[in-house]
Amino acid sequence: MFESVPPRAYGGTERVVSYLTEELVARGHSVTLFASGDSETRAHLVPAAPRSLRLEGGAQDALALHMGMLLDAYARAREFDVIHCHTDYIGLPFTPRSKVPTVLTLHGRLDIPEVHPVYRAFPDVALVSISDAQRHPLAGVRWAATVHHGLPPDLYRFHPGGGKHLLFLGRISPEKRPDIAIRVAIRAGVPLRIAAKVDKVDQPYFERVVRPMLDHPLVEWLGEVDDGEKERLLGEAIALMFPIDWPEPFGMVMIESLACGTPVIARRRGSVPEVIVDGHTGFLCETEDEMVAAVARVAEIPRRSCRATFEAHFTAGRMAEGYLRVYGREADRALRGKTRSLAVREIVPVVGTA
Amino acid sequence: MFESVPPRAYGGTERVVSYLTEELVARGHSVTLFASGDSETRAHLVPAAPRSLRLEGGAQDALALHMGMLLDAYARAREFDVIHCHTDYIGLPFTPRSKVPTVLTLHGRLDIPEVHPVYRAFPDVALVSISDAQRHPLAGVRWAATVHHGLPPDLYRFHPGGGKHLLFLGRISPEKRPDIAIRVAIRAGVPLRIAAKVDKVDQPYFERVVRPMLDHPLVEWLGEVDDGEKERLLGEAIALMFPIDWPEPFGMVMIESLACGTPVIARRRGSVPEVIVDGHTGFLCETEDEMVAAVARVAEIPRRSCRATFEAHFTAGRMAEGYLRVYGREADRALRGKTRSLAVREIVPVVGTA
Repeated sequence: MFESVPPRAYGGTERVVSYLTEELVARGHSVTLFASGDSETRAHLVPAAPRSLRLEGGAQDALALHMGMLLDAYARAREFDVIHCHTDYIGLPFTPRSKVPTVLTLHGRLDIPEVHPVYRAFPDVALVSISDAQRHPLAGVRWAATVHHGLPPDLYRFHPGGGKHLLFLGRISPEKRPDIAIRVAIRAGVPLRIAAKVDKVDQPYFERVVRPMLDHPLVEWLGEVDDGEKERLLGEAIALMFPIDWPEPFGMVMIESLACGTPVIARRRGSVPEVIVDGHTGFLCETEDEMVAAVARVAEIPRRSCRATFEAHFTAGRMAEGYLRVYGREADRALRGKTRSLAVREIVPVVGTA
Repeated sequence: MFESVPPRAYGGTERVVSYLTEELVARGHSVTLFASGDSETRAHLVPAAPRSLRLEGGAQDALALHMGMLLDAYARAREFDVIHCHTDYIGLPFTPRSKVPTVLTLHGRLDIPEVHPVYRAFPDVALVSISDAQRHPLAGVRWAATVHHGLPPDLYRFHPGGGKHLLFLGRISPEKRPDIAIRVAIRAGVPLRIAAKVDKVDQPYFERVVRPMLDHPLVEWLGEVDDGEKERLLGEAIALMFPIDWPEPFGMVMIESLACGTPVIARRRGSVPEVIVDGHTGFLCETEDEMVAAVARVAEIPRRSCRATFEAHFTAGRMAEGYLRVYGREADRALRGKTRSLAVREIVPVVGTA
């Protein structure tokens, strides 16, 4: 609820919930979406706040608004076959009273010890990870599936040509390691475009580390860009540079890049090895030397392979199929264990980040 | 859990929970306290975090820690006759599954609309307000009682003499109106001591509004003071200045002042008219003119009346009796409504602010 569905500004969770919701509706499922009232959807929208909290600014207690949304959703639980929750752990205490199964997609990192006992306390909830890597810190819970994020296939078009520059895209922060991207590009002698926003919290890092590196003639700083610009930049790139140094649960920009046909030069962290196949859709590296060598070889990778991998594994359709399998299993499980209605017909994504 | 019980630094809720817990233990009740592990209590302490979160600094997810604490408390619910919760609304979703009644003391202001539906959704929970005034914004819930805060009777000694200065004590912030206290003291020609901390968020207000007023020879700025210093300053004051302009749910400093025998010159906001009796333990004013007149008359108020009012209405013993009545009624109610164990013998304060 911090953003509308889909989000007007940055909002990873809301974007994925939107893609999933519209795909489920397109497949004929009846979906009720609990989200901020300025959301746009073909599902039945239940406005849990008049406007997204980031726009609103006036909401003094976001947690209470999310609690209210969960109360509404669970009060109506009997209308649904499955409740699909995207609000981290805050919905868990509502689940034991409900006969309707809850599927909970975890969108954040899980290496924060204080959240572990909370997830473990609700073994009836089907947890979905957005990558296998995301699960590592959290054992002893009921993992129902990994469902990788997906994009509508036409959101980013295939760009067969490619261009001459490397691209760093997203957010400037220490763990994204833009400094590595810059050093590698300079050593490889290939131009690098940087299209990234700088959050307030990362401003000191940007000033201290990144800005002094932007003077080099091979480095072009573009600042924050919109979605159309993003596609153009991806389409014109010979490779996306993704030298992250944190266990990112799922890096959306990797599949955006593949959708455009652009291979990814990445470090083996978090979800990266599940998304990029070394030598096929990019290169998995560790050191800067390896990344410089990868830049030299990246033209060997057919752009069509990248797009084909995207279409086979990372579309909204593939994501919806993954979730429908989980919904079906959980509805069956509830049917066997408790008294339950019939098939998966109605799904309720509850959106928001606590 | 943001502070230990009792708190080492500022922590209103934790301080009250400590006074209540120790008083209940002293009266022979068996009490289990869920709180941070560095708490000091004669009750059974269940450490819900090794150290208070304000000291710890390392806890990345305070909400998850509070959820974990609530999970533990409600998992053990059958051991207790009553669960007394101090964590605002976050414990509510745990209550419907429990046969043990929950008493929830609301410590904050309630004029935030998004919290209302959450409280209304759990009519089985006995809500306790810390003043009648606090209830106004929140109708349609089950108010079980108002229980004013209380202090151990020997925490602040009676100071029969009083002194020659007025005192502003607490925190500098716009809604506490230190500017009014200063103007009134100057117009009345009586020295004013200001013993107050300035939080980071209030620093601009302090610099812009308050600091320029501190130069006057009648005004003495003392900054933040410790508990011992606080008692000395209260004991030496002819009156406490409390010209607040917000609906403070309960102003602890008023009863600290009465305990020392010091009358209070206050504005009629929030809990003030429930604590101060006009002409008997201080003066209730609206305008600065009225406050200037009150300063001139305040010597008429016998300091012994203030202490007597404190002893009759605002001790930890009186607070404990108020809560014991609520525990008893709720245990009876649970006994009639559901299957329940016997008497109020074991009470679990769960502490923390969400």
